[in-house]
Amino acid sequence: MIQYKAPVKDIKFLMNDVYRFQEHYKTIPGGEEATPEMVDMILEAAASFSEDVIAPLYQSGDKGCRFEGGEVQTPAGFKEAYQMYVENGWQSMSTPVEYGGQGLPISLSLAKSEMIGTANWPWGMYPGLSLGAMNTIWMHGSEQQKQTFFVPLSEGRWTGTMCLTEAQCGTDLGQVKTKAEPNGDGSYSLTGQKIFISSGEHDMAENIIHIVLARLPGAPAGTKGISLFIVPKFNVNDDGSLGERNPVSCGSIEEKMGIHGSSTCVMNFDAAKGFLIGPENKGLMCMFTFMNTARIGTSIQGVASAELSFQGALPYAKDRRSMRSLSGTKDPDKVADTLMVHPDVRRMLLTQKAIAEGGRAMVYHAARLADLMTAAHNRGDQQAYEEYDDELGFLTPILKAFLTELGYEAANHGVQVYGGHGFIKEWGMEQIVRDAQISKLYEGTTGVQALDLLGRKMLLGKFKSFNRFADQVADFTKHTKRPEMKKMVRKLKRNMLAWKVNNLRIAYKASKNRDMVGSASVDYLMYAGYIAMSYYWAQMAETAYQKLEQGDGDANFYKAKIQMAEFYFKRMLPRAKGHAKMMVRDPKSLMQMDEEHFAFLD
Amino acid sequence: MIQYKAPVKDIKFLMNDVYRFQEHYKTIPGGEEATPEMVDMILEAAASFSEDVIAPLYQSGDKGCRFEGGEVQTPAGFKEAYQMYVENGWQSMSTPVEYGGQGLPISLSLAKSEMIGTANWPWGMYPGLSLGAMNTIWMHGSEQQKQTFFVPLSEGRWTGTMCLTEAQCGTDLGQVKTKAEPNGDGSYSLTGQKIFISSGEHDMAENIIHIVLARLPGAPAGTKGISLFIVPKFNVNDDGSLGERNPVSCGSIEEKMGIHGSSTCVMNFDAAKGFLIGPENKGLMCMFTFMNTARIGTSIQGVASAELSFQGALPYAKDRRSMRSLSGTKDPDKVADTLMVHPDVRRMLLTQKAIAEGGRAMVYHAARLADLMTAAHNRGDQQAYEEYDDELGFLTPILKAFLTELGYEAANHGVQVYGGHGFIKEWGMEQIVRDAQISKLYEGTTGVQALDLLGRKMLLGKFKSFNRFADQVADFTKHTKRPEMKKMVRKLKRNMLAWKVNNLRIAYKASKNRDMVGSASVDYLMYAGYIAMSYYWAQMAETAYQKLEQGDGDANFYKAKIQMAEFYFKRMLPRAKGHAKMMVRDPKSLMQMDEEHFAFLD
Repeated sequence: MIQYKAPVKDIKFLMNDVYRFQEHYKTIPGGEEATPEMVDMILEAAASFSEDVIAPLYQSGDKGCRFEGGEVQTPAGFKEAYQMYVENGWQSMSTPVEYGGQGLPISLSLAKSEMIGTANWPWGMYPGLSLGAMNTIWMHGSEQQKQTFFVPLSEGRWTGTMCLTEAQCGTDLGQVKTKAEPNGDGSYSLTGQKIFISSGEHDMAENIIHIVLARLPGAPAGTKGISLFIVPKFNVNDDGSLGERNPVSCGSIEEKMGIHGSSTCVMNFDAAKGFLIGPENKGLMCMFTFMNTARIGTSIQGVASAELSFQGALPYAKDRRSMRSLSGTKDPDKVADTLMVHPDVRRMLLTQKAIAEGGRAMVYHAARLADLMTAAHNRGDQQAYEEYDDELGFLTPILKAFLTELGYEAANHGVQVYGGHGFIKEWGMEQIVRDAQISKLYEGTTGVQALDLLGRKMLLGKFKSFNRFADQVADFTKHTKRPEMKKMVRKLKRNMLAWKVNNLRIAYKASKNRDMVGSASVDYLMYAGYIAMSYYWAQMAETAYQKLEQGDGDANFYKAKIQMAEFYFKRMLPRAKGHAKMMVRDPKSLMQMDEEHFAFLD
Repeated sequence: MIQYKAPVKDIKFLMNDVYRFQEHYKTIPGGEEATPEMVDMILEAAASFSEDVIAPLYQSGDKGCRFEGGEVQTPAGFKEAYQMYVENGWQSMSTPVEYGGQGLPISLSLAKSEMIGTANWPWGMYPGLSLGAMNTIWMHGSEQQKQTFFVPLSEGRWTGTMCLTEAQCGTDLGQVKTKAEPNGDGSYSLTGQKIFISSGEHDMAENIIHIVLARLPGAPAGTKGISLFIVPKFNVNDDGSLGERNPVSCGSIEEKMGIHGSSTCVMNFDAAKGFLIGPENKGLMCMFTFMNTARIGTSIQGVASAELSFQGALPYAKDRRSMRSLSGTKDPDKVADTLMVHPDVRRMLLTQKAIAEGGRAMVYHAARLADLMTAAHNRGDQQAYEEYDDELGFLTPILKAFLTELGYEAANHGVQVYGGHGFIKEWGMEQIVRDAQISKLYEGTTGVQALDLLGRKMLLGKFKSFNRFADQVADFTKHTKRPEMKKMVRKLKRNMLAWKVNNLRIAYKASKNRDMVGSASVDYLMYAGYIAMSYYWAQMAETAYQKLEQGDGDANFYKAKIQMAEFYFKRMLPRAKGHAKMMVRDPKSLMQMDEEHFAFLD
């Protein structure tokens, strides 16, 4: 049984010391509410709620949801926890005050999401999906749609879903077949089947609002003929009360590798009543807002997997005794030394920790951008909005794919620290692996993210957002003069230079052969991830040195942070080397084999 | 539903073309029986049996074993399949003729084990564990023990287990507490509890022979006081018939991440009757024989995971249509191109294939050594035995840890090729991941194997077995003159030189600080694995060129093999670079952090 403790100290280190959120909050609407006292109070409350209410449901929730007669029963305790969550106002933290919310910065919400997601990712998916639905309605919905659907979602009385995938298509949404026929009264009738719908049906809220991709009659083929609809489980009367049941129903729930507490539904739309959201045939474009939010949300899962698995593995490593230290017995009175004396066990623990903390630093930086982007949107500053979107758009695929790949790795280290016991359900370590697996798949697989990064953001974007990032790093390296930081700064400068050179090599090769993009993509993404993360680790080390110099705070904490940065640079960053080699290879070694010669099994 | 097809063509390529087993078989007793016709017949029969009988039980077996009233019911069909297996004589293929066996080479048995293990690893564990028990009795048992226990095991009427682990110790067997008290009649009374006992209880055979580590009264503490015992489930009468039930019983079975079809038992010994095997207090030494066999057996699981996941992913990639090729639409008449047009999907498939085929080459080379080692033992040539043991001892940790780590990676690629569908149980892809996870844990974790390789085999062994391996590689590079092989040969020569230099660097650092061994170990093992595998890929490429030159056989097969070797050198071997960097790092970045500063959660 893993005892989750929210890493509040680390979160505050990022918010207060590294990123100086208090200064940042002064620049955004709603930020004035986020006083230091308020932030502390919220973090402490979110920590307690996650530790005491949500975490205890993690292992028991692995028994899964039950499906009977079209209804889904979530695991014992899920519903009650959700009620508390809603009553405590957690869902409306960062939604606008004029729509029933508390108007606090999104970055604060993300801190809460991290804690809840680490305590129990499958549980967190129910309110998490609502956020995506809310964002879409907020960005593209009419005033009436906001009043009708956004407010109850924000209050948490209802939950939301995203209905994209169909049996024949997930990534390639141009293949969507679900139809939407106009009813003549401004509403539409949706018919079709969606699969893999998280929170599509459950017993936790009184209504479920589905955001659905579908085709209007006569719409162009492919991605240019997809529109976006709101389809409620229960129709909504003019006064906001629930009307009759809409013919959208759950046909079955999937048996999956993990996240058993989260219902994954086949949803059947049998002429269900829906409402167009955004312009006709522009559904995919509108959906992108939805997906970007979801992708940053998913990147948190990487941090969560690493953090929880680390918290599970550390006490075991301190407690379990096996063999003697090779550098001399440490506990002669005991039957054996603890696992902590073994360098390789430390390597695994430190790798988990480096992923959790390095990933957290990346996510909280993105959270700050999300604050700024939302503020720009809300004040109608399209140019600023697009710039922040651009900046975030460069980071999003890295966060989503790199952090979930590494989170999965970290979860596997956790199993490994336990040895054979890691394979046994009782300890909870293997569940983290099973749950983490999905993070590499949904919201765009690692391969899809990698194409987005290299193909769209880098090559099509002519490295614009990369250059902005490179300027930020250059600014950091230029102003970091501390002798202790010399090695890290030098390494960072060299790697940024190498990255630029590699960009040009790949761009050149891709101009000759478009298959170069897919051929390089995943190695490129991992390469980018390792170097980007080193920048965040260097920033944390620099801040820790500053704090030590100033002599305030917990010196041990700052020293450990510097040691972690050293660990990252020495023991993880070198992985970028192999990726660098492989990503510049000609596509030939991937493409030359005839499809029929992949196997000779007859 | 994955349709397993045994890769007989690839197995024959290794046995006939690369390693020339027909010449090898002329040099070992029993080898004369293994004529080309006999070998073909056996491979074909093993293929059919695996494909038709064992494979269909893989996904259904995931429902798991049932435990009731001390008895274990294996999944539907497991028992009947085992009966067929026994009736067809598969268990006794390579046991001595004078003890009821067929006396065929062990390498042939391994080919069978690969097919069965790939078709259904959890099923294969039942007969697999018997092999370990048989080996131990063969190497250390008395003539009477062989007659009483070996013969029925070989016939498959009984099965065997290895009872090592206890709740407080797995790796550190010096902590074993189970007691063996002499009964005065030459037998012993064993009392204690063993955990994680695969096949400890089941319904497939009439008796179960446990090989048990326990302590004699007054035995020295630690590893020097452990003895080895045979404890049968049913006592055996003088005429070989079953006597009364021995008080060794299954207390419960574990709920695990995977291999649900294999029973993992808590075994309680309540003054159970046992027989000493081998000398008193030398149990661990005797057990090493057992463990080495088991470790080579486990390395096959790496190959099996990669092969099965590849076979599951390939048809899906050929069939599933998503997006268009970036280098131009391939199937304009279809709604989208297949996954096969996407370079990154090919990268994943080719990685799986490179692991399966490269791993197979390593395992079949080890199988040849196992033939020679057994022949040396059986003819009483201790010196030859020890030399082969040494050669195999160098390869064993690499095979066990490197191949299972890579097999696990391959299984994850299989899930990734399926996208979200990979997470769904129905397709069978996620099961391979769950089942593969255990291969990195049992028979010594990756960390334990890495310490064995670097600490024992390399440093304590003064690089003797490494030098022998290096000589073999040098012999190959010296005699490989073909211009097409020039690049691979050059790369291999350079890497072997770098490996030697790195050995010296690490040895030097370890002489100053023993923690260097554990600090370098896992990166070292992976580094060794990647370079070693490149040697096997180069051998396969050279053989394929020879066959193409000779113009016999399937030219497409040989061309694909060469393309695979190129893929390995270009797209996998560069991973060694990062490991090389990290393994030579000072242990400081692992050891400097105070145990209490790993987390600040209060």
